[in-house]
Amino acid sequence: MSGYQAIDQYLEQHFLRSIDELCRLCSIPSVSATGEGIEKCAAKVVEMLEKRGFVVELLETSGAPAIFAEREGRRKDKTLIFYNHYDVQPPEPLDLWVTPPYKPDIREGKLFARGVDDDKGPFVSRLFAMDAILEADGELPCNVKFLLEGEEETGSIHLRQVVEEHREKLAADVCIWEGGGVNSKEEPVQYLGMRGICYVELSVETANQDIHSGLGGSIFHNAAWRLVWALNTLKNEKEEILIPGFYDNIQPPTERDAAFMAALPNPSDEYKKRYGMTNFLEAYQDGEALYLAQAFQPACTICGLTSGYQGPGSKTVLPAKASAKVDFRLVPDQTPPEVLAKLRAHLDAQGFSDVQIKFMGGEGPGRTEPGDPFVQLAVWMAEEIYGKPAQIIPMAGGSGPNAIFIEVLEVPIVMAGVGYPDAQAHAPNENIRLDLYMKGARYITRILKEYAGQ
Amino acid sequence: MSGYQAIDQYLEQHFLRSIDELCRLCSIPSVSATGEGIEKCAAKVVEMLEKRGFVVELLETSGAPAIFAEREGRRKDKTLIFYNHYDVQPPEPLDLWVTPPYKPDIREGKLFARGVDDDKGPFVSRLFAMDAILEADGELPCNVKFLLEGEEETGSIHLRQVVEEHREKLAADVCIWEGGGVNSKEEPVQYLGMRGICYVELSVETANQDIHSGLGGSIFHNAAWRLVWALNTLKNEKEEILIPGFYDNIQPPTERDAAFMAALPNPSDEYKKRYGMTNFLEAYQDGEALYLAQAFQPACTICGLTSGYQGPGSKTVLPAKASAKVDFRLVPDQTPPEVLAKLRAHLDAQGFSDVQIKFMGGEGPGRTEPGDPFVQLAVWMAEEIYGKPAQIIPMAGGSGPNAIFIEVLEVPIVMAGVGYPDAQAHAPNENIRLDLYMKGARYITRILKEYAGQ
Repeated sequence: MSGYQAIDQYLEQHFLRSIDELCRLCSIPSVSATGEGIEKCAAKVVEMLEKRGFVVELLETSGAPAIFAEREGRRKDKTLIFYNHYDVQPPEPLDLWVTPPYKPDIREGKLFARGVDDDKGPFVSRLFAMDAILEADGELPCNVKFLLEGEEETGSIHLRQVVEEHREKLAADVCIWEGGGVNSKEEPVQYLGMRGICYVELSVETANQDIHSGLGGSIFHNAAWRLVWALNTLKNEKEEILIPGFYDNIQPPTERDAAFMAALPNPSDEYKKRYGMTNFLEAYQDGEALYLAQAFQPACTICGLTSGYQGPGSKTVLPAKASAKVDFRLVPDQTPPEVLAKLRAHLDAQGFSDVQIKFMGGEGPGRTEPGDPFVQLAVWMAEEIYGKPAQIIPMAGGSGPNAIFIEVLEVPIVMAGVGYPDAQAHAPNENIRLDLYMKGARYITRILKEYAGQ
Repeated sequence: MSGYQAIDQYLEQHFLRSIDELCRLCSIPSVSATGEGIEKCAAKVVEMLEKRGFVVELLETSGAPAIFAEREGRRKDKTLIFYNHYDVQPPEPLDLWVTPPYKPDIREGKLFARGVDDDKGPFVSRLFAMDAILEADGELPCNVKFLLEGEEETGSIHLRQVVEEHREKLAADVCIWEGGGVNSKEEPVQYLGMRGICYVELSVETANQDIHSGLGGSIFHNAAWRLVWALNTLKNEKEEILIPGFYDNIQPPTERDAAFMAALPNPSDEYKKRYGMTNFLEAYQDGEALYLAQAFQPACTICGLTSGYQGPGSKTVLPAKASAKVDFRLVPDQTPPEVLAKLRAHLDAQGFSDVQIKFMGGEGPGRTEPGDPFVQLAVWMAEEIYGKPAQIIPMAGGSGPNAIFIEVLEVPIVMAGVGYPDAQAHAPNENIRLDLYMKGARYITRILKEYAGQ
């Protein structure tokens, strides 16, 4: 590989300016769960793209707008699209942050802020890569498009509609997804698929007000008990999901998938240390099958519970309302509508027709085949930048709307990001490592130019 | 009955002054669950008692102090003790209050404020009654003592210790408890017993932080699931408590108890209307046995649930912590230590040794026999004041530390209060009816003077 001297020199010289730009973006809250700062953050993203000569358009939805941007390159017959999102997870619990979530802080070679890893860092590092190419080459090597959505953290509820409505505008040959980075051995990681998700809120209401528990404890329906009993029918302690038909449409991993997953290092000790755990669910005590289960098994997770009195001390009330936030992680070929229908039928059959289901967003699972040429290119370039062979992970435990791009735009998808295992995505003290930010930007320049053959 | 003309005249003429004094007391928060205002409210109560010539003493505990007061009367061989409490339940949810909980508001003949029914109204009405007697007779008819605690709403956690330590100081012949009032037919109600309570917080911790649910959903222990599964083992949908031995020491109601309970009106329609319910637990659909079950059956009530993300929208986390507040209502001869031991053994046996139990307070059940002469006196006086025969209720569903007085001070206990069915105790818009406040004060004057034979 040659011709990257000017590009790498630019990246070295302008690194702090890019970090400064990232800090400014991270100081704007953009919590899709509450709507806080979404509009202001979208305007900032538009300004950042226009500054690079992109033609930008807001694609309105009934929720947060998506942001589309495009700029022609030297090769007009090749188009690469970036998927990112500008929304972030809520920062709570605030008291666990060492520095405030929206006051980006650099310490020990890391930058801390809500959204810095997921997903503002990857986005700004891509702009940084393009700044370098534009400075060195005067133009981009091929057409480049961006789609940034503002609802990824709440289940990308309008993304399918946006992509379907604008499929010609978004048309591309290949796609670079958000995320990606290195594992605990500093090996670059290539995730080729993500589980789907079906996020619901289950709620029960048994009275028009909370009632003195001494009055009602033996005779009235209790919303909290109804919820507990209903949840208990969804999954047992062996992690078996008890909804009839839930496992019907599941495709087991192929031999190639299983081989890739088996080649991954045992993450057991790392998880135990990071999360202060002494063990895992019983089936995975030896740690060997952790990755396979994480990616190729569906899951049913209670994300939150709320009912009655939750303050300090005691209050003797019988709660009128109770609710749980629950996410189902889906593997091929499960779909959210199918899971919703089976969940409703199950609750009714178990006598819980009083439990309401509110669909809070979701998307099916999606994957790109390991043999795709664009995947091969990304894997080769990763070794160049990171100095170690890439880990191929056919499927990851997390979710994203990649299935929409795969199905509607028919693009192969690779990941190229700035992450590492202690990034604390979705948790307090979310962070990126500055060295990996630089490598992420360099990696993007390589993929872009080599893909275009320029 | 005669000789009450001057007393009743005093009560008529000074009614508004007493209401004003009650409003001032209710405007001081005194939430034992959080400690808010406890000290200030205790000081105000001391001032109110000293103003009436009582000798007052703070009985310190490691929590809120109890307040002891005494004043000698004409008969020095007879002593009546009042039990009240100056703490209140937390006022949340605040948005359901028509007027703020600590800004007492009079509308439609009612006074609204947190604690006005439970238990500041009964306390101030008793002072009002004594003001009238002192004005009319120049002295009280017998010795009168008060014990007001500041932790009733959090399970009277230090009361047993206070009563045992000061048993000679507190010695009395008879006791008037907090509470009491009329039912929906305006008949005075005489509660002779209360269920016990054992209030616990159950908590689970599975990691040192909340984790991205995509990462951990299939492989990590989830605190919320652990809690749900553990709770589910405590009680089934038939309201059967599943802790081995839980029902062992229960004494069924006597025939006399059952006859008194059967004489009570069917509260079914009233409950449905008040709480917006369409039905009750299956065993009580006809409503006939509601009162009996409410008082003579133990209960296990989830009072609150909390775990993970509870804000608007969705957040994909696997919670590290989950907890539930649970109250057990106890009937003779169950005791809190026995229930705690059985609960711990049960959770361990079910594989939930990871579920921590924090005892938040409690007391055994307590009752006074319907045939006691002081009960007969109270029943007779109630008919005089309220114009209708009293309803005898051998046991109520609520709890209080009456067992301590019955066991340690060996006093019969009656209730004489200002309550009515829509008082909203423990709920938003707690209130008393002004007419019943007046009757409550008159009732106290009768019991005091007739008991002393003066």
